Amino acid sequence: MQAEIITIGDEILIGQVVDTNSAWMAQQLNLAGIEVHQITSVHDDREHILNALNEAEQRADVILITGGLGPTKDDITKNVLCEYFDTSLVFHQPTFDTIQKMWFNKKGIPVNDLNQRQAMVPESCRVIPNQTGTAPGMWFEKNDKIFVSMPGVPFEMTAMMDSEILPRLKATGKTIHILHKTILTQGIGESMLAERLSAWENSLPSTVKMAYLPSPMGLRLRLSISGNDNEKMQSELDTALNGLLPLISDCRYGFDDETLAQSAGKLLLQRSCTLSVAESCTGGNISHLITLTPGSSKWFTGGVTAYANSVKTAVLKVNSDTLEKYGAVSSQTAVEMAEGVRKLLNTDYSVATTGIAGPDGGSAEKPVGTIWICIAGPTKFICEKFVFGNDRERFIQRSSQTALHMLRKFILNN
Amino acid sequence: MQAEIITIGDEILIGQVVDTNSAWMAQQLNLAGIEVHQITSVHDDREHILNALNEAEQRADVILITGGLGPTKDDITKNVLCEYFDTSLVFHQPTFDTIQKMWFNKKGIPVNDLNQRQAMVPESCRVIPNQTGTAPGMWFEKNDKIFVSMPGVPFEMTAMMDSEILPRLKATGKTIHILHKTILTQGIGESMLAERLSAWENSLPSTVKMAYLPSPMGLRLRLSISGNDNEKMQSELDTALNGLLPLISDCRYGFDDETLAQSAGKLLLQRSCTLSVAESCTGGNISHLITLTPGSSKWFTGGVTAYANSVKTAVLKVNSDTLEKYGAVSSQTAVEMAEGVRKLLNTDYSVATTGIAGPDGGSAEKPVGTIWICIAGPTKFICEKFVFGNDRERFIQRSSQTALHMLRKFILNN
Repeated sequence: MQAEIITIGDEILIGQVVDTNSAWMAQQLNLAGIEVHQITSVHDDREHILNALNEAEQRADVILITGGLGPTKDDITKNVLCEYFDTSLVFHQPTFDTIQKMWFNKKGIPVNDLNQRQAMVPESCRVIPNQTGTAPGMWFEKNDKIFVSMPGVPFEMTAMMDSEILPRLKATGKTIHILHKTILTQGIGESMLAERLSAWENSLPSTVKMAYLPSPMGLRLRLSISGNDNEKMQSELDTALNGLLPLISDCRYGFDDETLAQSAGKLLLQRSCTLSVAESCTGGNISHLITLTPGSSKWFTGGVTAYANSVKTAVLKVNSDTLEKYGAVSSQTAVEMAEGVRKLLNTDYSVATTGIAGPDGGSAEKPVGTIWICIAGPTKFICEKFVFGNDRERFIQRSSQTALHMLRKFILNN
Repeated sequence: MQAEIITIGDEILIGQVVDTNSAWMAQQLNLAGIEVHQITSVHDDREHILNALNEAEQRADVILITGGLGPTKDDITKNVLCEYFDTSLVFHQPTFDTIQKMWFNKKGIPVNDLNQRQAMVPESCRVIPNQTGTAPGMWFEKNDKIFVSMPGVPFEMTAMMDSEILPRLKATGKTIHILHKTILTQGIGESMLAERLSAWENSLPSTVKMAYLPSPMGLRLRLSISGNDNEKMQSELDTALNGLLPLISDCRYGFDDETLAQSAGKLLLQRSCTLSVAESCTGGNISHLITLTPGSSKWFTGGVTAYANSVKTAVLKVNSDTLEKYGAVSSQTAVEMAEGVRKLLNTDYSVATTGIAGPDGGSAEKPVGTIWICIAGPTKFICEKFVFGNDRERFIQRSSQTALHMLRKFILNN
């Protein structure tokens, strides 16, 4: 069973709204074993909508439509649907009752003409009740194809999908199973990894697909398999995964939606250990990434953003001779910052960063993008230099991710 | 001039990635006076890509394609483009030099076969250099239509659009002239502001359009005017702006791409003043937002992330009696944190936050989402309570923006 998604509405085409609905729907459809073939965003325009419906019908078995059903816009979408399915609008009492309950009983607002019009639905559709809003969903069948029109308001759409649309689609018995596994890596480029994995990739059975997904947070690898025999699929996926993991033990840190901070935090929690950070060039971002994680207060004590040298000496107790002799961007300063914050906040581990985020402050010897990262633990420390380019925001992100990845490996090895 | 956007890549169609590229491109194209007619997401599949190109060519003048250009084997876009434009791949020395510079010279990693393949480009295209990655962009012209293929990595795509694609599209002379002014506000909702501005909005000449653009960083207002007479357009836009600004003096902080941290930093720099921060529930994010700003080291001294109470007492010198009597989430603790960090880092101003980001830790009296924010200056301080809901990430963003907005107003008034 193949699906297509059509989103109707000018707000997406002028870039005012990011289309998060389609990503959510695609995820749910894939989990339900329905492949999404195409996503199309069109204007609130009769001819454009008719064309999109017609083209989608040629390619897919299920066409899910969102948007264009608000009280000011619904005339056009509903009338276009009537035209496409050769039917006409009729009054639908249960929808009217819902609207009345929602507006009049709850908010004391009398039902107006616009609301009345929302209770008109195409005669040939099955009405899908809207539990959280006024515009109902509409389910059409034509030439063995299914069309569903839903409101574009995210929580109305997701409630309708969960309660009615997905169960009905699964009940057709035409869906296949797809299994995915995403493996998260850090500190390695796409082409280097692809070269390393090429023999393993060539040995994969044709049923298993592999994709490289780069992002500012690191490179993700996705294994996918589809079929009917769930047990066999899971076993083939496990075999592929077991072949892959040993090849990337130096750069992988987790699966699916896990973040590096979560991954490092899990290790700290297992060991009942605590962490502090001392950030110069990353300016608080490592601390921010850590504290985005719910429950991080169990293992993260706090940190110091030591932007000015005076903070490095006065608060972190970095020796002013060290700053003078080696400079703020040096391994010596990084180590003293890490040791300083570990003592100050009395934690087991610490992370320290000092570098040049740019655009100014670089030199021939220490160009913009240079950073020293130090990880300190109860009995040893590690300190490493990187050069991460001259885009300030990317430098901060890459430095932060690298530091968290170093921390994770350091805890595992010590 | 009408444009269409085609995104290539399975990751969007399985819902693993939200398509933020298209929204950004649509925004930029609209700002440049190019209307986006349709957005289409297709698979990494030869026939599917060919069909999408063919259909888009029937409808639009410019077709912008993103994705499918990575060095690994799931990326087939280049070969499909050769087929569509009836050309073949040739070796492109400048692209190879860029790749070599990026990989070998900077990172000491030898260029491999995959990198070599990235230097192969369709013979009939104009190569658009990639300043931030290895895969070049490609500009094709066919039957008076323009096709541009770009990498799907957001920062590579945006850099290419800004530096080459948008200027070239404008240079065709086929775009209409649009002037925009974006006004940035913080701390006010869309419906409240719309009500306040309705009389002014009704008095706008029909040539001037106004849009409300909500975002997690605050509500932006965009004034737009299109036409041919630049001087007249500018004058009408100025008149509209002069009517608007006095109506929103309490909530506006800047224009266009300015951030709240930049806006506050400008004021501090003018006054030769310095700033420090003490963050509990915002966990380093205020420090991060500040240090994203180039040159912030001129006015930002540093900060303390006081996640554990022990850091509040030991480093910031918050009285342990205060914590015991009023709790960590209290005005008393916020004030002592702000005063503590101001003294510790010896700055003119300071910002402090203490609250409950959730999901745990709330109570009937202090529910999840509660936050106290204190701004302290040389001779006075201000402390205010907010309740910002129970989504952890949104809570952190809203709290941070609110704190920076309070800081900006405090500096202006003191």
